[in-house]
Amino acid sequence: MSRETSEPTSHRGRYNKPVPTSNLTSEEDDFPEFEPFEGAGDSEATPRTWNSEASLSVQNVDMCQPVNKPNHFTSAYDIPNLVVRRGQEFVVRITFSRALTQQDDFQLEFLIGSSPSASKGSLIVVTFGSRRGGAWSGRILETRGQMVMVGVTPTPDAIVGKFRTYVAVEVNGGLQRTSRTTSTDLYLLFNAWCPDDCVFLPDESERQEYVLNDYGVIFQGTVNSVAHRNWMYGQFERGVLDACIYILDASQMPITDRGDAIKLIRKGSAMVNSQDDRGVMVGNWSDDFSMGTSPTSWTGSTNILLKYASSGVPVSFAQCWVFAGVFNTFLRCLGLPSRVITTFSSAHDNTGNLKIDLIFHPDGTPDERHTTDSIWNYHCWNEVCMVRHDLPRHLGGWQVVDATPQETSDGHYRCGPASVNAIRDGLLCHPFDCGFVFAEVNSDVVFMNRDRYGTLTPFRVDKTHVGQAVYTKAVGGYGPVDITHTYKYPQDSPQDKLTMSRAEEYGCARDHSDLSEPELSVSISVEQAMLGQDLKLVMDFQNLGEVSRSIAAHLSGSVVFYTGVSAAQFKDQNFGVTVPAQQTERVQVTIPAQDYMPHMGGQLSLRFVVTGQADDQSVSAIKVVELMTPKLTVEVYGQPQVQQQMFVTVSFTNTFSFPLTNATLVLDGPGLTGVRSRLFKVIEPQASVSWTETFLPRFSGQRRIFALMDCVSVNQVTHLLPVIT
Amino acid sequence: MSRETSEPTSHRGRYNKPVPTSNLTSEEDDFPEFEPFEGAGDSEATPRTWNSEASLSVQNVDMCQPVNKPNHFTSAYDIPNLVVRRGQEFVVRITFSRALTQQDDFQLEFLIGSSPSASKGSLIVVTFGSRRGGAWSGRILETRGQMVMVGVTPTPDAIVGKFRTYVAVEVNGGLQRTSRTTSTDLYLLFNAWCPDDCVFLPDESERQEYVLNDYGVIFQGTVNSVAHRNWMYGQFERGVLDACIYILDASQMPITDRGDAIKLIRKGSAMVNSQDDRGVMVGNWSDDFSMGTSPTSWTGSTNILLKYASSGVPVSFAQCWVFAGVFNTFLRCLGLPSRVITTFSSAHDNTGNLKIDLIFHPDGTPDERHTTDSIWNYHCWNEVCMVRHDLPRHLGGWQVVDATPQETSDGHYRCGPASVNAIRDGLLCHPFDCGFVFAEVNSDVVFMNRDRYGTLTPFRVDKTHVGQAVYTKAVGGYGPVDITHTYKYPQDSPQDKLTMSRAEEYGCARDHSDLSEPELSVSISVEQAMLGQDLKLVMDFQNLGEVSRSIAAHLSGSVVFYTGVSAAQFKDQNFGVTVPAQQTERVQVTIPAQDYMPHMGGQLSLRFVVTGQADDQSVSAIKVVELMTPKLTVEVYGQPQVQQQMFVTVSFTNTFSFPLTNATLVLDGPGLTGVRSRLFKVIEPQASVSWTETFLPRFSGQRRIFALMDCVSVNQVTHLLPVIT
Repeated sequence: MSRETSEPTSHRGRYNKPVPTSNLTSEEDDFPEFEPFEGAGDSEATPRTWNSEASLSVQNVDMCQPVNKPNHFTSAYDIPNLVVRRGQEFVVRITFSRALTQQDDFQLEFLIGSSPSASKGSLIVVTFGSRRGGAWSGRILETRGQMVMVGVTPTPDAIVGKFRTYVAVEVNGGLQRTSRTTSTDLYLLFNAWCPDDCVFLPDESERQEYVLNDYGVIFQGTVNSVAHRNWMYGQFERGVLDACIYILDASQMPITDRGDAIKLIRKGSAMVNSQDDRGVMVGNWSDDFSMGTSPTSWTGSTNILLKYASSGVPVSFAQCWVFAGVFNTFLRCLGLPSRVITTFSSAHDNTGNLKIDLIFHPDGTPDERHTTDSIWNYHCWNEVCMVRHDLPRHLGGWQVVDATPQETSDGHYRCGPASVNAIRDGLLCHPFDCGFVFAEVNSDVVFMNRDRYGTLTPFRVDKTHVGQAVYTKAVGGYGPVDITHTYKYPQDSPQDKLTMSRAEEYGCARDHSDLSEPELSVSISVEQAMLGQDLKLVMDFQNLGEVSRSIAAHLSGSVVFYTGVSAAQFKDQNFGVTVPAQQTERVQVTIPAQDYMPHMGGQLSLRFVVTGQADDQSVSAIKVVELMTPKLTVEVYGQPQVQQQMFVTVSFTNTFSFPLTNATLVLDGPGLTGVRSRLFKVIEPQASVSWTETFLPRFSGQRRIFALMDCVSVNQVTHLLPVIT
Repeated sequence: MSRETSEPTSHRGRYNKPVPTSNLTSEEDDFPEFEPFEGAGDSEATPRTWNSEASLSVQNVDMCQPVNKPNHFTSAYDIPNLVVRRGQEFVVRITFSRALTQQDDFQLEFLIGSSPSASKGSLIVVTFGSRRGGAWSGRILETRGQMVMVGVTPTPDAIVGKFRTYVAVEVNGGLQRTSRTTSTDLYLLFNAWCPDDCVFLPDESERQEYVLNDYGVIFQGTVNSVAHRNWMYGQFERGVLDACIYILDASQMPITDRGDAIKLIRKGSAMVNSQDDRGVMVGNWSDDFSMGTSPTSWTGSTNILLKYASSGVPVSFAQCWVFAGVFNTFLRCLGLPSRVITTFSSAHDNTGNLKIDLIFHPDGTPDERHTTDSIWNYHCWNEVCMVRHDLPRHLGGWQVVDATPQETSDGHYRCGPASVNAIRDGLLCHPFDCGFVFAEVNSDVVFMNRDRYGTLTPFRVDKTHVGQAVYTKAVGGYGPVDITHTYKYPQDSPQDKLTMSRAEEYGCARDHSDLSEPELSVSISVEQAMLGQDLKLVMDFQNLGEVSRSIAAHLSGSVVFYTGVSAAQFKDQNFGVTVPAQQTERVQVTIPAQDYMPHMGGQLSLRFVVTGQADDQSVSAIKVVELMTPKLTVEVYGQPQVQQQMFVTVSFTNTFSFPLTNATLVLDGPGLTGVRSRLFKVIEPQASVSWTETFLPRFSGQRRIFALMDCVSVNQVTHLLPVIT
């Protein structure tokens, strides 16, 4: 693990020493093994010598993993060291050179980072009743001959990370310490089981899901055609916990801040993207991923985190669900209760007000040149559940954090924690970034005509399109739970009006155009379809007026990125429709697969815009369609038992009319197998491929194997198979 | 002006175009001079031709500087272009090719940055009653033949910066624009005179001071020996306004955010220091400034800003008052009401709680190795007065912003805006960085004994030492005004208790050690003295107990940086004192100049620590002394009149007993002369040097000439002379 450090400026007159920011690589300045007491003369203070039989020494320190791990719900971590959670007692068995007497005195010392300091919480001395010690409490649980079993309870706000453990005994006017050994290193995590920890979660099934579940489902697509994306968090896999600490080290986050969940998750949201700080992942919203791995071909977080920690170089590439998936691993791995959220029709407004301006030409067609705002089909972020010590109490609970590098969130690429309660209630006057998230779920869509002088005039406002639904995976289940109500009160309810007026008070500019109710309107609907199938489009033109209207209409169809930005236009058609007074006229259009397939370029979203002009009235409607992808077949054979060889076979048939080239099949199953992949140069139309691997289950219980197929022209082809061992 | 740009990541699927962030260098994509209306056929839309006599064209656009500048209080800007303030009308005189008729239509267009957009406020079309235009209002004030005088009123929340101005007339089915010329470029500033601008200041004398005064006094030293440091802000000097806009360009701040005072000043606080973002100045708290200019030798901001803007490279070196001085120039130059604040005994706590831990050895002497917190003798920051649209209304008014790169203020080197009212009331739950500033003025000083096991035990808490006073320059005067009450309620008043309990509720950990009132105490006082004079130290040991006490005492004396960090120890003395019951014993010590002078190394602060042990009791006291410096002589000769040659003579006599080498004399007087300097290789003891320069006053009224002498061993030798022209 390596990292460039920035050129140091001279601060001799300002700090006594540099602020410690490295947890994994800083053991050089621990105490000496023998430290004479200050003021003790040289003659009386001498290290323990081989022949002083009666003097006390430490023969063994046992971190008691088999006892501590189940109590701390950390058995799943694939790591040789003890992992425990703060605010909860763990036990250590110390074997001395002889039984203790009344005169003997010993202490445990836990150190983290360089220059550990008692006043900063990075050096903790634990005493056992004999005299005053540090903030962590200690007690002797059992004494049996030379063996003493002690209990140590870290404070519920202790620094989180990797501590070095020493036992010191008082000998000959000084302290004699155990030698440095990595085997007694202790990982301390946040504790959702501890009522005094700010991340306490009272419900056991929620703790199982939000802290301990290493598998997840991330929802994508549109609210009308929700796609389920499996994601292997893998927070317990070998190397992942160290990688998460490495991220904090790479961020140069001071060690002393690492017990503060608010600072830590805000730092995490900055570090999971590479912008500003050479963080974990490089965002790429183009259609060219040739310089790295396509965002759609990751199965989970493990490989990404291990690659980053071993190289120190940002990993290519991510889009929002990858950022959210990796961030969720980081959070759960450190013990923070967290989940991935999907917001459908998420506003991406680059002025920071509450208006998404869509601009149209005088003839009613979209003016893409002058439209700079966009509405993402969906956007993923994370939530962490915690008490907000820095805010009024009712703003605790779930907090939004977002690692996707959005623009100018407080000038840097990070976002949150923003209280979901504060967003729901319009209390945008509290940190961090509440206004930004509020706009993502609440912006009005303002349809603007741009006249020939360049002047913009609003002609329609849609107050319901943005933030149509907010989903997350069900606790213990696989499907989505709609949590929109946690972000928003029902549209136009009294609470909603209060929220909106508060938001305006706190600087969110809303649209107040006084637009008369139009007589003419249009809506589009499209049947859900598979990629490669023809589409049936239905447009309903409605006339509420007293006279018949002839509408000059226009239909455009484009392939769009999930960010709402147009990739390629494939349909551009004028047509006329006459709607009698008080009537609705339906126009049906079929889009053959061959019209759109050549333009897909790996995307799955199509956007249709219908506009029309009749005398002085404009109508318009927009519809985004998410195409479904075929499934893979995954089968497992063999005795489903821990450490017994098993087999998995992945099969795929190309049902498209064109060959798939450079198709990668990827397999992932935390607890069962690491990530494996296989490249198929060409899969001809109607041809099938099949691939078998062996694996050894590491745990018993229900695990999952996830497979996907990814190539430039078709991706998101996946399957998930539960495996019970 | 040049600047490296970071490697672009591909975002084609995310943005239509890059977010505009450059104001000074982006004129390439303005409208064409002739733009046919959309939908107009080629045959009917043609540019104006030489022989179409009747068609309208623009012959001249006059920005009317002599009328607009006094109305907008911008006459002092030494710049060829018009500078006006937003939310207030300015006039433009347009001369057409002929008198206007009823059929004629024209508009003004103001553009800022690349890709200007009407919906983002970076393209404003101003119309004159004929039809709907943009947000800025326009009216025709007078028509006389071919000449039309129009009034234009930018919105009070308009973007601040440099706009390009065009006049467009409707001809032959299109718009014919004036050619691009920099002479009609318009600088738009914040407006403290406009009631609808968020930076409105109702009091005229305050506006004169906080927006228009280009001279200031920054207070330094200690609360008992306040030093006055003159600072030439120079916000009106040639090139400074462009330099301030360059800073925003270099920060890559989106153009559309630049009308938002909150975002702009937060960005400014990040950019005035070089950390993170290659901003204006490099901090250096060492005693080695050989790689740049010593912080003490700057006379003002002008040269710093011009150097940064012309090179794009951070300027070396600054300490807090330099950061605050440069930041104040930036703020006032852009029209923001601002002032420099000095807080005496400012806590610099690197754990972010409300405790400054000073650690002592078991024998009572200071343990510098384990003490990581420090108390700065003084610290300078800025305040900006504004409405906080993002917060509850009562949190408007003065806002703290700090450009000195303190540590981990939200993970980046910037601070504020933090509402002073929020700090006073403990409402630390609002952005930005209220808790950080609150700790700077409210921390408790906890005196800790570190026992031989490394355990810390508090033995004294001082709740009044930190934030002893907060000063700023008087409106219209030269002296300090104590504004401590705006930051803090009286100690232990009911409001103070409420503030402290709120601060704790919002996560500030305070000290609650239950310490019994000690019987023994000690205090130190020192008479104010000049650098190079002997010091008289008085220590009063008080015994409130019923028995006489023999105290083993220790006095240490160190030269300290103004940040409270020790530079060199020059006194280390044990002594005994016996204090009878209910008595006070006085111990006097004289410190000869030759004891401390060899250790000063350019510093001016001495710190004395007296500690004592008597049986089970410890006493300690700390005193910081700021030494005064000799003065320069400055004299002015000649006719005090605008554009008449005048003479200034600076003289200095070396009253020290040692020679001064490489002494620089510097002169500065905005409106009178630019910065000039002269080097004297050696000034022997008792020798005098004298230096005369000529200058031409640019303005009438009261101006000031500031001179200083700076060398490695002695600095802060200054004089200020008012000059009325």
